[in-house]
Amino acid sequence: MFKKDEVGPLNILGIVVEYNPFHYGHLYHLRASIEKTKADVTVAVMSGSFLQRGEPAIADKWTRTRMALQAGIDIIIELPYIYSTQKAEIFSDGAVSLLHSIGCNQLCFGSEAGDVALFQSSVDKVDAKESELNREIQQHLKSGVSYPRAFSAAFQSVFEGDNILDLSQPNNILGYHYVKAIKKLESKLKPYTVKREKAQYHDKELTREHIIASATAIRKKLIEEKQPLEAIYQYLPSYTLQELKGQLQRWGSFVHWEKHFPYLQYRILTSSPEELRNIYECEEGLEYRLLKLITKVSSFQELMEVVKTKRYTWTRIQRLFVHILLNTTKSFMEEYCKPLEAPYIRILGMSEEGRHFLSSRKKELEIPLITRASEWDHPVLQKDVLASQLHSLPYLKNHSLQEEFKAIPIRYDKIKGIFLT
Amino acid sequence: MFKKDEVGPLNILGIVVEYNPFHYGHLYHLRASIEKTKADVTVAVMSGSFLQRGEPAIADKWTRTRMALQAGIDIIIELPYIYSTQKAEIFSDGAVSLLHSIGCNQLCFGSEAGDVALFQSSVDKVDAKESELNREIQQHLKSGVSYPRAFSAAFQSVFEGDNILDLSQPNNILGYHYVKAIKKLESKLKPYTVKREKAQYHDKELTREHIIASATAIRKKLIEEKQPLEAIYQYLPSYTLQELKGQLQRWGSFVHWEKHFPYLQYRILTSSPEELRNIYECEEGLEYRLLKLITKVSSFQELMEVVKTKRYTWTRIQRLFVHILLNTTKSFMEEYCKPLEAPYIRILGMSEEGRHFLSSRKKELEIPLITRASEWDHPVLQKDVLASQLHSLPYLKNHSLQEEFKAIPIRYDKIKGIFLT
Repeated sequence: MFKKDEVGPLNILGIVVEYNPFHYGHLYHLRASIEKTKADVTVAVMSGSFLQRGEPAIADKWTRTRMALQAGIDIIIELPYIYSTQKAEIFSDGAVSLLHSIGCNQLCFGSEAGDVALFQSSVDKVDAKESELNREIQQHLKSGVSYPRAFSAAFQSVFEGDNILDLSQPNNILGYHYVKAIKKLESKLKPYTVKREKAQYHDKELTREHIIASATAIRKKLIEEKQPLEAIYQYLPSYTLQELKGQLQRWGSFVHWEKHFPYLQYRILTSSPEELRNIYECEEGLEYRLLKLITKVSSFQELMEVVKTKRYTWTRIQRLFVHILLNTTKSFMEEYCKPLEAPYIRILGMSEEGRHFLSSRKKELEIPLITRASEWDHPVLQKDVLASQLHSLPYLKNHSLQEEFKAIPIRYDKIKGIFLT
Repeated sequence: MFKKDEVGPLNILGIVVEYNPFHYGHLYHLRASIEKTKADVTVAVMSGSFLQRGEPAIADKWTRTRMALQAGIDIIIELPYIYSTQKAEIFSDGAVSLLHSIGCNQLCFGSEAGDVALFQSSVDKVDAKESELNREIQQHLKSGVSYPRAFSAAFQSVFEGDNILDLSQPNNILGYHYVKAIKKLESKLKPYTVKREKAQYHDKELTREHIIASATAIRKKLIEEKQPLEAIYQYLPSYTLQELKGQLQRWGSFVHWEKHFPYLQYRILTSSPEELRNIYECEEGLEYRLLKLITKVSSFQELMEVVKTKRYTWTRIQRLFVHILLNTTKSFMEEYCKPLEAPYIRILGMSEEGRHFLSSRKKELEIPLITRASEWDHPVLQKDVLASQLHSLPYLKNHSLQEEFKAIPIRYDKIKGIFLT
């Protein structure tokens, strides 16, 4: 444990996570990041109830926070919904601005490329050719393809032959935007990257074999294939299994879109075209398609399949559905979503080391530090409370709602391995 | 059966019903009305999915239409939601304007008073003292009581000692407004009333004893007390029992507010104060009370109990909840709810006699005759389709919706006692 006067030269590592759920790939990335940066304190900014792919997290944020604490993270702060359910650029700007604000001086991300210098040079090169790139993107968009596809094609043609990042890889895209956000913020955050490991790896400390499977594959086994937790023990640390078991006991099921479908269906059915058009990301007449199609489908999966077009990625449509479910308007986002200026830091959990770091930083913070949602009346925080309530709505008995207002950060003693709250 | 050229002098009786569900009291009223008016054809204007007390009907409109046809009614037309879920005055204006439009020349209603002359003289007396009465009502409202209470008190004091109608009785209130609507419309409809019979009565045609119980008492037995249909056979004709059995098989349960509660809860949770304030009948800061209370309750019953104040009747609050559920705005009602000018006549069911009457009248009708919701694109009709879809939402399997667009009127042969569609 460190004292207040030692804070200056400490390595404060920031990482950006969803932990949906926490698995061995995350553990590998966490340990490799700490090793690489020689971090003294690790801060994770974690998405709350709804995630970047436009899906509800399979477990609530508190359950996922407990996983993160047991994995060794010192401070977990919430990435607000206004950033968490967004394309890579806004998502990254929000996450990096939070890590910058809390006082991190390192940021380490997983990437397919694995070479941080390549990220930095690519950001600089793109900046230099920004207008040319934008022209190309617009050209490609006119042919009716989705934005990510247009971007990737434009990028390839503008930088053909150049030694530049492969931006068709999902983690490279995020890493690129993290490095870009650092540049835009003129932050002292130093970027690092760890090459993503897909193969299986052996953890010396543990006796049984661990396999890295993607969170997507794990969720598929749990939700679509309805496999019991025992069937996937080799992909998940024991504390993740334990936490998922608790989630199942409390909520009766893991969280997935199908259970929210009745509310989405109800919301679309009872909306006028004008009301749908006011929803964030509802563009180009999508409101009429939705109103026409909603009476013809009987599941979320069916809805996705009929709404999907070449123009929009699956993820883009799912994000729209989250915004419809939460009734998030364009004007709300215009007013409150300032990507590089997170309005507050909300603590979800901390180790004792994390708590000491926070109290040493407290007075220097330029934005409010929130430990209880009831402390501060801010529209972005209210949205996160609403997101959490809606996330829990189909699951909790007697129509009760996740108690977000009263919840306090989870405290964990890493040495003793026990929760203090 | 009558021929077209006989239509002129026929007695075309109109009645206003909810049939929630059809019981012996309704049968008594129907037979007494036909006897009194010597009706050749009986037309019932029946509320669709949501009723005057601000509740969903326990069975869908098609099921209740089949009950009405088997009871001997010739034509069932739908009272649109814009009228059906309203205070007595708008409800009555809408119903009477429909019976007037379809060509009824008699209207017979049940009442506690039982003397139609008293209704007519009371309407005239109130008209003569309208401004005095309104002043009194405003005085009473200032003390914080509900409108019906203020009206009743004002009425008593203005007409003290006069031989005037007892307007504290619910059926007298409706009858009063029917007669008033006839006067406002300058309609040729001739009013009749049948005194409501509460005691048990014996039907000569049938061998077993029949008891008149109120629809409220019957619903209470079915829903709150969860009694089987067999337990209430003596209150209901066999066709009502049969139809209710069918409803149970198709929907799994009778319709009641608790099953709609999750949608109402979701809608309030995700509404801004401004959005709630735009809802019809959301007045005087109720939006803030609702937003505050909605996170604290876990059932419709609980919600009603905490929202209820001296200022608003139970019914008034329930109606507001229907409007919130259906997302019906003040501006929608201002634009489309013209109480004395129903925009169309929608046929839900008809006997062969009814069908002949309709084809004889068809060319003289001044508003459209709708037999299929898909035929006509009108916002009031769209609202009825939505109301029907939402009515069915918590009940139908696989999130399917009541097929309102394709539905056609139910045809019934009274002589053979068989349905033709």
